[in-house]
Amino acid sequence: MKISKEKNTRNSNHYGAEILCIGSELLLGNIVNTNAKWLAEQLAILGIPHFRQTVIGDNSFRLKEAILESSNRAEILITTGGLGPTPDDITTKVIAETFNTKLEERSDILIDLNNKLQHKESRLSESQKKQSLVPKGSKIINNSTGTAPGIIWSPKNGFTILTFPGVPSELKEMWLKEGAQWLINNNFSKKKISSKVLYFTGISESTLADKIPHLLEKNNPTVATYASTGEVKVRITAKGDNLNETSKLIKPIEQELIKLTGLKCYGEDNETLEQLVFNLLLKRNETIAVAESCTGGGIGSKLTRIPGCSKIFHGGIIAYNNSIKQEILDVPEEIINKFGAVSKEVVESMAKGVHKKFKVNWAISVSGIAGPNGGTKLKPIGLVMFCIKSPKTLITWEKRFGSNKTREDIQKLSVLNALDRLRLSILMES
Amino acid sequence: MKISKEKNTRNSNHYGAEILCIGSELLLGNIVNTNAKWLAEQLAILGIPHFRQTVIGDNSFRLKEAILESSNRAEILITTGGLGPTPDDITTKVIAETFNTKLEERSDILIDLNNKLQHKESRLSESQKKQSLVPKGSKIINNSTGTAPGIIWSPKNGFTILTFPGVPSELKEMWLKEGAQWLINNNFSKKKISSKVLYFTGISESTLADKIPHLLEKNNPTVATYASTGEVKVRITAKGDNLNETSKLIKPIEQELIKLTGLKCYGEDNETLEQLVFNLLLKRNETIAVAESCTGGGIGSKLTRIPGCSKIFHGGIIAYNNSIKQEILDVPEEIINKFGAVSKEVVESMAKGVHKKFKVNWAISVSGIAGPNGGTKLKPIGLVMFCIKSPKTLITWEKRFGSNKTREDIQKLSVLNALDRLRLSILMES
Repeated sequence: MKISKEKNTRNSNHYGAEILCIGSELLLGNIVNTNAKWLAEQLAILGIPHFRQTVIGDNSFRLKEAILESSNRAEILITTGGLGPTPDDITTKVIAETFNTKLEERSDILIDLNNKLQHKESRLSESQKKQSLVPKGSKIINNSTGTAPGIIWSPKNGFTILTFPGVPSELKEMWLKEGAQWLINNNFSKKKISSKVLYFTGISESTLADKIPHLLEKNNPTVATYASTGEVKVRITAKGDNLNETSKLIKPIEQELIKLTGLKCYGEDNETLEQLVFNLLLKRNETIAVAESCTGGGIGSKLTRIPGCSKIFHGGIIAYNNSIKQEILDVPEEIINKFGAVSKEVVESMAKGVHKKFKVNWAISVSGIAGPNGGTKLKPIGLVMFCIKSPKTLITWEKRFGSNKTREDIQKLSVLNALDRLRLSILMES
Repeated sequence: MKISKEKNTRNSNHYGAEILCIGSELLLGNIVNTNAKWLAEQLAILGIPHFRQTVIGDNSFRLKEAILESSNRAEILITTGGLGPTPDDITTKVIAETFNTKLEERSDILIDLNNKLQHKESRLSESQKKQSLVPKGSKIINNSTGTAPGIIWSPKNGFTILTFPGVPSELKEMWLKEGAQWLINNNFSKKKISSKVLYFTGISESTLADKIPHLLEKNNPTVATYASTGEVKVRITAKGDNLNETSKLIKPIEQELIKLTGLKCYGEDNETLEQLVFNLLLKRNETIAVAESCTGGGIGSKLTRIPGCSKIFHGGIIAYNNSIKQEILDVPEEIINKFGAVSKEVVESMAKGVHKKFKVNWAISVSGIAGPNGGTKLKPIGLVMFCIKSPKTLITWEKRFGSNKTREDIQKLSVLNALDRLRLSILMES
């Protein structure tokens, strides 16, 4: 990506921002570091380049080491955690020690602490008072929802530390009210960075990458791919002086990507497949029902996530047991006996059954072998059959997700594939 | 914490493990670093001290810098991300370059890649082949669910790198199947730390914590609580010379916890509510079906996650639309008109309907207001009705999850509550 390459050519040791999260609970794996993600996002919004995140426990030796290292690389160090009143809260003290600076008691913080705690305690304890000690020359970041304030302090030329509490709600409020503004006022927010994410399904990450080598090499905007189960995400990130400029950079790349991949690209930014199916059906004023075997209700449950889904989603039959396929979905017993429950004939009959019973425009059915047992040479684990029926459409297809996949993956891939083909089938009728 | 203090007194520069997560998407704040948390937890379980986590983007200069630094501090470096086929996947190449080592093409990986991709592509593309290049002398960590393998490689005396993909499911499987075992076999796991996790539902974290202040203060074992949507986890962690010693420390605490909380504790370690329902029904040789409205198939889909669930789970009706409740589940129209779709009368009728149609021993039904619209003063968002029916049992109940909850949370809480009451109802018949 572009911001990375700049650094290589600059070879300056003093550039961009780093995030340092402090707390042994992070090293023990007790909590997920959502603060780092949130701060990284905020830095991207401000267009402040951000090159490294570090997590250190409540240990002064190692914390000092990490702060010193950052001060030799970055212009800005943002810390979270370790500002509270207990003995394991050592951030402010260690920052001061790292740059051989004394702490001073700030009467404005003491007054503020007294005000905040007056309903709770008669007077400040020694550990509470600790929160009023900051390095000489610090600017205070007020904490209106908690007790511990943060600081903005430049221990040396060209290097500034901003400290925040580890409690996410306090961090966010302090950042949004004061931290971000300070960075803008002091000209750290120079270029704007904006991103667009496109979502793809029905294509592997490597096949997609092979189609767009020239885009992956670009500098501004940069294009990067990320794979997850059944989906590939492509992020286009542009840097410019304003949002108008970045969107002008992103647009042609987005169009080229869509041209090269066609309908494999199903959505952008936070769109989901189920949301797209919902939008398409709502626009056509049509309804849908499901008949699920190996997914056990997974497609229905995805569609039900959408607020207002009752306008398009009537419900469905979870026909896990063959007797249910016969008795509730009217799949003829002889078809199951002749072709097996995982067959094109059975999914077609399932789709027709639910289509008729639920009086809907669209029906989708799934039956497959999710494993870990039940696979044969002809019908291995990972083989899944699907059918979509509407007044104008009747398609059945099979997918072989591979017998190396877990039961959960096969179920998840089946739900995604069903929703994707549904989207394409509705589009084709439009 | 103990392990931090140890380091201070040792002052050796070569100790413990570090985690290095690679990917610009982490620095852009696109995703939360759940891999670091999961690995940190795994290291704690193995009793391997862990002192630092670092995140670096897809940039070879800075990645090299970070790897070199770690090699001067730690014995073990665990990396995630950057093993895939695209140009921004640079981890293996940069690791080799950092220690001036050449990459070699491994035919065993090539064969494996060919096997995995044979149904999808005719032959390996250049970018796919890249995944078979590893530093000379590496041991391979097989990736059975994805394509990119990891490596275990010691570029210098006393320092070993283990690489894993960034896709969480692949990382976890590779760690559990091979990575952890390698660390144990090579004596990195010295002091044994073992943990037992108990799962609770139907009790809040603070109510639970108020019952066990004396346990939360303990040193060995330590007791800690973690809350997530609808569930509370209590982890008991003991440290000792061997597993016999740690289990002797854990046992009495576990018993006391269960005594203090009774049936609120539903399972231990990796047990899920759906697994427990499955076990109970299998033992009794009984079957179940579902009738779901606001959960849209969520209960069915959870039960279908269990391998072999066909022995107990017959299927169900997703009755999202009222017409389906009437026509497929035989809920009388006048009941819906009189009491509303979210009422005890309707869920009772839904449960009876599916119980009869599916000829099962147990039936469970759900109907509620998941929001964000549709709430009234009498029936607010978050109100959910449930019914369980068996030949001996007929119970209906309501939950008010709170109108401040999201649609997704209300659906998730409804599924958990349904499965929990099912577990308790089956237990009460035993």
